[in-house]
Amino acid sequence: MAFDKNKNNDNYKENLDMIIGRNAVMEALSSGRPIDSLLVSRGDKNGSIGRIISACRERGIVIKEVDNKKLDTMSGGSSHQGVICFAAAHEYSSIDDMFALAESRGEAPFIIILDELEDPRNLGAIVRTAETAGAHGVIIPKRRSASLSFSVAKTAAGALEYVPVAKVANLPGTIDDLKKRGLWIYGADMDGTCWCQQDYNGPVGLVIGSEGNGIGRLVKEKCDFIVSLPMKGNITSLNASVAAGILMYEISRQRSDIKAK
Amino acid sequence: MAFDKNKNNDNYKENLDMIIGRNAVMEALSSGRPIDSLLVSRGDKNGSIGRIISACRERGIVIKEVDNKKLDTMSGGSSHQGVICFAAAHEYSSIDDMFALAESRGEAPFIIILDELEDPRNLGAIVRTAETAGAHGVIIPKRRSASLSFSVAKTAAGALEYVPVAKVANLPGTIDDLKKRGLWIYGADMDGTCWCQQDYNGPVGLVIGSEGNGIGRLVKEKCDFIVSLPMKGNITSLNASVAAGILMYEISRQRSDIKAK
Repeated sequence: MAFDKNKNNDNYKENLDMIIGRNAVMEALSSGRPIDSLLVSRGDKNGSIGRIISACRERGIVIKEVDNKKLDTMSGGSSHQGVICFAAAHEYSSIDDMFALAESRGEAPFIIILDELEDPRNLGAIVRTAETAGAHGVIIPKRRSASLSFSVAKTAAGALEYVPVAKVANLPGTIDDLKKRGLWIYGADMDGTCWCQQDYNGPVGLVIGSEGNGIGRLVKEKCDFIVSLPMKGNITSLNASVAAGILMYEISRQRSDIKAK
Repeated sequence: MAFDKNKNNDNYKENLDMIIGRNAVMEALSSGRPIDSLLVSRGDKNGSIGRIISACRERGIVIKEVDNKKLDTMSGGSSHQGVICFAAAHEYSSIDDMFALAESRGEAPFIIILDELEDPRNLGAIVRTAETAGAHGVIIPKRRSASLSFSVAKTAAGALEYVPVAKVANLPGTIDDLKKRGLWIYGADMDGTCWCQQDYNGPVGLVIGSEGNGIGRLVKEKCDFIVSLPMKGNITSLNASVAAGILMYEISRQRSDIKAK
């Protein structure tokens, strides 16, 4: 079943363009505009809504079923006819795009995996750093994650044009696939190997956990290695985009054979 | 003259607590509450305003002269009597506090210098990373910089309790003083030594430039070394807090004698 019963859909707070009503949504879909997600009214699946849902399913767009009242509130009184969708600031890519990018550069794949990062500014800053550190893509989960909103695009400072970002339904399953395709998976967490003493040779998947909770248990179990940043003071964690940046630049350093002092 | 003619005072957008009117400001000052800055109406310096200005001068608080109309707008109709001040989320420290902290730990000083960083979230994330990387303080300029607002405190995630933050009137002059006290000054900019090939041995001052413009010319001229992060893609700069984090952890690594792979 493709519908998400989770009511915590706060996309509209996240600076995504809202498209309201059957005709407008249908037009956005047929124009090929990047769509982040679709909200449909619980129950009502008649007429053109059925076609809209099918079109979204085909394109792998997240579909959420919500109460009609929620659509009323979100549309601020406009006639939504049971459907609202959110346009993204940029089209999502596939994981194959990332492997193709690595191959075109003659490099081993270097992919960033974000486990439920919710802050658009962190996502944007990570995409920006991924671009400068030479990574080939950023993977985010379809649910409970910041999306490619305009806030993300702004913080990414143009990097969305160069770094493929893919949304996946099942992060642990995706990590299994990446491992089958040869990636070693490194998770950033406490009590691991000191970040710069880890060897990142070969194809790399780097997992960064959410702001509040770090890496989830199921994802952590999939990691081949855990790497940690020493904490010299009383604070026990870093901002997610800062931690990701330090790790990406260490991986980038080793890949470029730059010897550290 | 202590008054700033610059009209671009946007502190009130920055989530600082606003204290309105002579009695309230006088009380905040005498309670010893951390005060970020004082705004006074142009011209009117009679009565208790004179005492308020003197008290702020004594404590080194930034005093800005603004049009009465601006105070009207900011106070939203409350009677401001020509004076508004902003409470900070935390007391500022002195540079001596940073040297004392380094000495108490038996370490060479390691101080972060921020040249007109305007984004409170960047300032907060940098204070947080400074704490975990073992730095002894963060210096910001009195003007054209984010202040210790509640947004900064939130992003710093508690680190303001442990890392002294000092506000200085003249950043190039302060850097001269720091050099006299034995610090080597490293500026993050383009076309410098690759960040991890620089030797950061001894007392360190690390300069990070503003989000838009990088390090200003006068400050850059004071730097002993310029260090750079390689940019492998098309984007030519990083988020300021990410760049600061990568550099702080390299300095921290060298100070801890951790050998990189």
